Amino acid sequence: MPRSSRQASDRDGRATSLPLTGDSDLPTCNRPRASVRRVVVEGVRPAVDGGRFPIKRTVGESVEVDATVFADGHDRLTVVLEDRRVDSGAWREIGMVAVDAGVDRWAARFSVDAIGWHEYRVAAWIDRFGSWRHDLEVKSASGHDVSLELLEGAQLVRDAAARAGEAGRLEKPGHDSTGADTSARGLDAADWLIAQADRLSGFGSISDRVAAALADDLRAMMTAHSDRSRASRSRVFRVWVDRERARFGAWYEMFPRSAGPDANRSATFREAMTRLPAIADLGFDVLYLPPIHPIGVSFRKGRNNRLVAEPGDPGSPWAIGAEAGGHTAIDPGLGSFDDFHAFRDLAQRLRLEIALDLAWQCSPDHPWVREHPDWFRQRPDGTIKYAENPPKRYQDIYPLDFECDDWAALWRALRDVALFWIDQGIRIFRVDNPHTKAFPFWKWFIDEIRARQPETIFLSEAFTRPAPMHYLAKAGFTQSYTYFTWRNSKAEITEYFTDLSAAHVREYLRPNLFANTPDILHAYLQVGGRPAFEARLLLAAALGASYGIYSGFELAENRAVPGTEEYADSEKYQLRQWDWDRVGHIKELVARVNSIRRRHRALQSDWTLRFHATDNPEIIAFSKSAGNDTILTVVNLDPRYMQHGWVECPLQAAGQGGKTRDDSYLVRDLLDDTVYEWRGTWNYVRFDPGVRQGHMLRLERQGFHSRTA
Amino acid sequence: MPRSSRQASDRDGRATSLPLTGDSDLPTCNRPRASVRRVVVEGVRPAVDGGRFPIKRTVGESVEVDATVFADGHDRLTVVLEDRRVDSGAWREIGMVAVDAGVDRWAARFSVDAIGWHEYRVAAWIDRFGSWRHDLEVKSASGHDVSLELLEGAQLVRDAAARAGEAGRLEKPGHDSTGADTSARGLDAADWLIAQADRLSGFGSISDRVAAALADDLRAMMTAHSDRSRASRSRVFRVWVDRERARFGAWYEMFPRSAGPDANRSATFREAMTRLPAIADLGFDVLYLPPIHPIGVSFRKGRNNRLVAEPGDPGSPWAIGAEAGGHTAIDPGLGSFDDFHAFRDLAQRLRLEIALDLAWQCSPDHPWVREHPDWFRQRPDGTIKYAENPPKRYQDIYPLDFECDDWAALWRALRDVALFWIDQGIRIFRVDNPHTKAFPFWKWFIDEIRARQPETIFLSEAFTRPAPMHYLAKAGFTQSYTYFTWRNSKAEITEYFTDLSAAHVREYLRPNLFANTPDILHAYLQVGGRPAFEARLLLAAALGASYGIYSGFELAENRAVPGTEEYADSEKYQLRQWDWDRVGHIKELVARVNSIRRRHRALQSDWTLRFHATDNPEIIAFSKSAGNDTILTVVNLDPRYMQHGWVECPLQAAGQGGKTRDDSYLVRDLLDDTVYEWRGTWNYVRFDPGVRQGHMLRLERQGFHSRTA
Repeated sequence: MPRSSRQASDRDGRATSLPLTGDSDLPTCNRPRASVRRVVVEGVRPAVDGGRFPIKRTVGESVEVDATVFADGHDRLTVVLEDRRVDSGAWREIGMVAVDAGVDRWAARFSVDAIGWHEYRVAAWIDRFGSWRHDLEVKSASGHDVSLELLEGAQLVRDAAARAGEAGRLEKPGHDSTGADTSARGLDAADWLIAQADRLSGFGSISDRVAAALADDLRAMMTAHSDRSRASRSRVFRVWVDRERARFGAWYEMFPRSAGPDANRSATFREAMTRLPAIADLGFDVLYLPPIHPIGVSFRKGRNNRLVAEPGDPGSPWAIGAEAGGHTAIDPGLGSFDDFHAFRDLAQRLRLEIALDLAWQCSPDHPWVREHPDWFRQRPDGTIKYAENPPKRYQDIYPLDFECDDWAALWRALRDVALFWIDQGIRIFRVDNPHTKAFPFWKWFIDEIRARQPETIFLSEAFTRPAPMHYLAKAGFTQSYTYFTWRNSKAEITEYFTDLSAAHVREYLRPNLFANTPDILHAYLQVGGRPAFEARLLLAAALGASYGIYSGFELAENRAVPGTEEYADSEKYQLRQWDWDRVGHIKELVARVNSIRRRHRALQSDWTLRFHATDNPEIIAFSKSAGNDTILTVVNLDPRYMQHGWVECPLQAAGQGGKTRDDSYLVRDLLDDTVYEWRGTWNYVRFDPGVRQGHMLRLERQGFHSRTA
Repeated sequence: MPRSSRQASDRDGRATSLPLTGDSDLPTCNRPRASVRRVVVEGVRPAVDGGRFPIKRTVGESVEVDATVFADGHDRLTVVLEDRRVDSGAWREIGMVAVDAGVDRWAARFSVDAIGWHEYRVAAWIDRFGSWRHDLEVKSASGHDVSLELLEGAQLVRDAAARAGEAGRLEKPGHDSTGADTSARGLDAADWLIAQADRLSGFGSISDRVAAALADDLRAMMTAHSDRSRASRSRVFRVWVDRERARFGAWYEMFPRSAGPDANRSATFREAMTRLPAIADLGFDVLYLPPIHPIGVSFRKGRNNRLVAEPGDPGSPWAIGAEAGGHTAIDPGLGSFDDFHAFRDLAQRLRLEIALDLAWQCSPDHPWVREHPDWFRQRPDGTIKYAENPPKRYQDIYPLDFECDDWAALWRALRDVALFWIDQGIRIFRVDNPHTKAFPFWKWFIDEIRARQPETIFLSEAFTRPAPMHYLAKAGFTQSYTYFTWRNSKAEITEYFTDLSAAHVREYLRPNLFANTPDILHAYLQVGGRPAFEARLLLAAALGASYGIYSGFELAENRAVPGTEEYADSEKYQLRQWDWDRVGHIKELVARVNSIRRRHRALQSDWTLRFHATDNPEIIAFSKSAGNDTILTVVNLDPRYMQHGWVECPLQAAGQGGKTRDDSYLVRDLLDDTVYEWRGTWNYVRFDPGVRQGHMLRLERQGFHSRTA
């Protein structure tokens, strides 16, 4: 066949579209054909419940994707990871690499650099040119006659030229970032490819033609213009990307009404401002306030949760709503919106971000009880059903009925409450008992808020069974309270945090480890005294990239209602005045720990958590790392007695796996800057509760030296 | 409120439809409302890839379903498992039981009693009456005033009455199996419920009214007429149900052309019939024949896979197609269709089911090469591309091009080949190298065949990487060849079969353990001699509910092409005449094992496989059980030397967990009917390769007695 006629027929016949039928005089092998997608893409990870729920990231993090991809036979595959910001629309693409050909597993990663929704998927197709190129290489090395193969390859290249030309014509006139004309580029590629095809099928020597066929630039251009018409694609998986605070932060909870000069009345926000510098000095990032709204009078609880309040008892802030207003009002005792704004602004200048409480319930005095009685459950006698857990009754609280006839208006009203406070500059909400409200509400609510203010962070306070707790995280909550307060032994802590950091869980659930709350003063703290508080602080701050304490923790306040986890004289029901410098406080440790957390990226994510062996059941050891920075935290869980023992040091994790047991190296306790010389894997530690309850050791890369050197 | 007016308004107001707005004088609490589905149903098992692929069962088996189901708050839930035959349309329903409330896990099972597609799903809704009933019980026990609660309950019952009445009116006039009028039943239920509601809200004493509220018959009727309008449902999951042979069977592979009187020509089917009684006597269920079609002449392979055939060499049956026809023809050497039918009919009378080979490839002489050259890959010189794995070439084979332009016609032609043999009475196909044909084809092909003949069984011969092998099973293949031939050590066998029987794998992949094939004579058999064949037979037959041997195995035929797994003088390329009674055969053992398999249900499923500890790495022990029947197989893997040691007996599995180490009991070796007295968990075994290579022990329930008794 004369070369010129073949070439012309390619140029003409393929100028407008790819022929899908075999009626030309051209060989039909290796042509693109319709409909049969031979590549299987399955098992894409990460994926929450097969992609039903999004995974979570923060800005700057990456998503490592892998998938099982294969086809029948021995053809080579091209596998790519596609990702995009949902807003911007354009898919990016990066080649995936076969990480384990024996199990057909491919991997690649992309990073997310903006708040909001992102998507990813895996696409794969038969790499005809790559398959052909590989066969050509083997056959020509074996001395086979490859002249027919070269003609087949030339056809593949001409097919690619046609695609390149078509793409160039379809491209809207425009210019890329270098100023080049983008549509001209496709046409240039087409011309270049046709020239290459001519070389493959031309009059040169076989060895020259094989060399042209195997050239790297041809391979690259063929990859760029490969035939994707029968690409197989996975479903689209979603990523919700938050700002960094969603991943990392130290929280401090306080009752502003207690922070005033007069023990007999609520402090105003303006008065409570005086506490802010001290809290900022402790190194906290988030200041969480229980509900700041007017408190109901009907059935108001008295001190220590008495059923009847005395005159002057302030009531529980969670009994929301009174004459002065409901969820969008401020309790008159706390002052005006001006006072609140002043408090908020000072906090902001001190790098303390305010978190408010969303507690979707009402006192009997809430305006909604009059305005929207149908948002509550009504009884046959016309009264509204109060909260109960028979035989217990909570007459100061009316639950909202999330499936009432007027549920759509109720849901919108709740959304508007959150938007109201967002207008007041609030971007973090701690959500009270979300597991007692209809789950479909949360999914809708969080999506609605995020569509308007994507920086918003929601912390789920669901102390319930694992399934609903995890479901709330999947449905959209940014962070979740955990069972941390009830995990005090080495075995409990190890098992629980191993579970929480498991690959499939960490994709959607971000733990926030509160060491205490106004509702939970664990027996370990009640009886363990100051060393117990120190140990739990170290655990919370080092195990959790997000952690929190409720004020009083830094004073080692441990008086409880006997036989309960309730604080004695709880601030939930009364005003308290605290001596913030009283004997036994652990403020220096708190400040030190928070400062270490801010300086060490290793502590700002939960993904690298690993537990390490010790030979003493009272001593727990775990590490986190980021790049070269590895922090090994070792804590004595026994607040009463000296404990000592041997700890296995994660040399491998610290990138020092080559060290032998004879090599020594330095570890620095970041808590007091003491440097220890350690040797090999196992090293000795000793903790006297009167002196220290743990170490936060940085493995120093400098200072390593071999004993034998 | 006067009782009569309330009652009348209920009856009248609710006679035609349920009010969805709150504008009547009735209490609005506990009314059905629109749209909010509060129950979450997730994590339904079994599910293959989240339900993308069906699970598999055989007729009479059951499906144990569990799911995570929960709602917000403390309401009680009703959770049901729904299943149906896809043909019949009607969903059955069975209540699911909370197996572990702490993790919200619910379970139930259904059984499948017909071949074909079945479906299942989980549905759940708030059990308002149950929640209310529980609260009433607690409150009245605590002495609370429950008069309002009783009115609320009465309303719930009236709501149910309205639903029952509505259901009765919607029911088509008809009669159930007892002859009762089905629509009248709903109306009767409505009347009965209204009477109960009257009792709850009536003038009786509180204690009488509470007793009426808590009555079991009311609870049952309320469950039957519960409000499902806001039920949450999982997706629908599919089950493909096969006949029993899909789960259990002993396969025998033979080349009928070798089974004749004349060593110099192919036997006809009529001649090969003489072999059938002997094969049936060995206890096999399936007789698998390599391709029986005309064999190509072009590039025909000679004996021992020589590139050039000598005159008289019969060629490989997998080089399908010649002058005499293609995939729907019978090789003239094998005789006529009449001969084939005679062979098939005798096999059937001997309870041997014929399995044919589907090998989708053609010799250069196949009629399709002339009739449909476009079904193959054509080269620039007009020739058809033969199979190759560069630098190796297989010029006697033309692969079909599953994505050719005319692919739809090709696919239909292949389907019609299978349907042709189904018309010949064939119901089992062994599929040659399915992993080298486009995967979407198999899914379509198997669905098409099953829609026409659901008894059809497909065995996938995909000796390839795990991902495509498993994918073919998911896509529809009934059974799969395995890596069994290459798993010979205790560790290899234990790991491999533990993986294959894992909960998520066994739902879709049914292994068929061939101990040898015409392509695979493993070195273990080559060097191990008769004891090796005995050991591998016991392993295959006891590990695999489906297993097979290729003829010659029972003769311990072990001559290989040196340095390969190929048989010397392989029947793939030449005729062989065998002396079926030659010295060293293991036919008695084969017959015995197959007989044991037929008598013991324990060996007819792979789901109960468990490995047990032994103290000798050459001795492997595992058990299967069905009801009270537990079979413990113990095999010496060393074909050369005597091995002895201790075996851990699965007393627990045998339902004898209460036995102590001092109790003795009997185990019977089903291979030779020897009875041993064993004591406690660990017992001694000893195997001399000259005597026996293993035990198949039945744990006898009779004969247990305590030493101390």
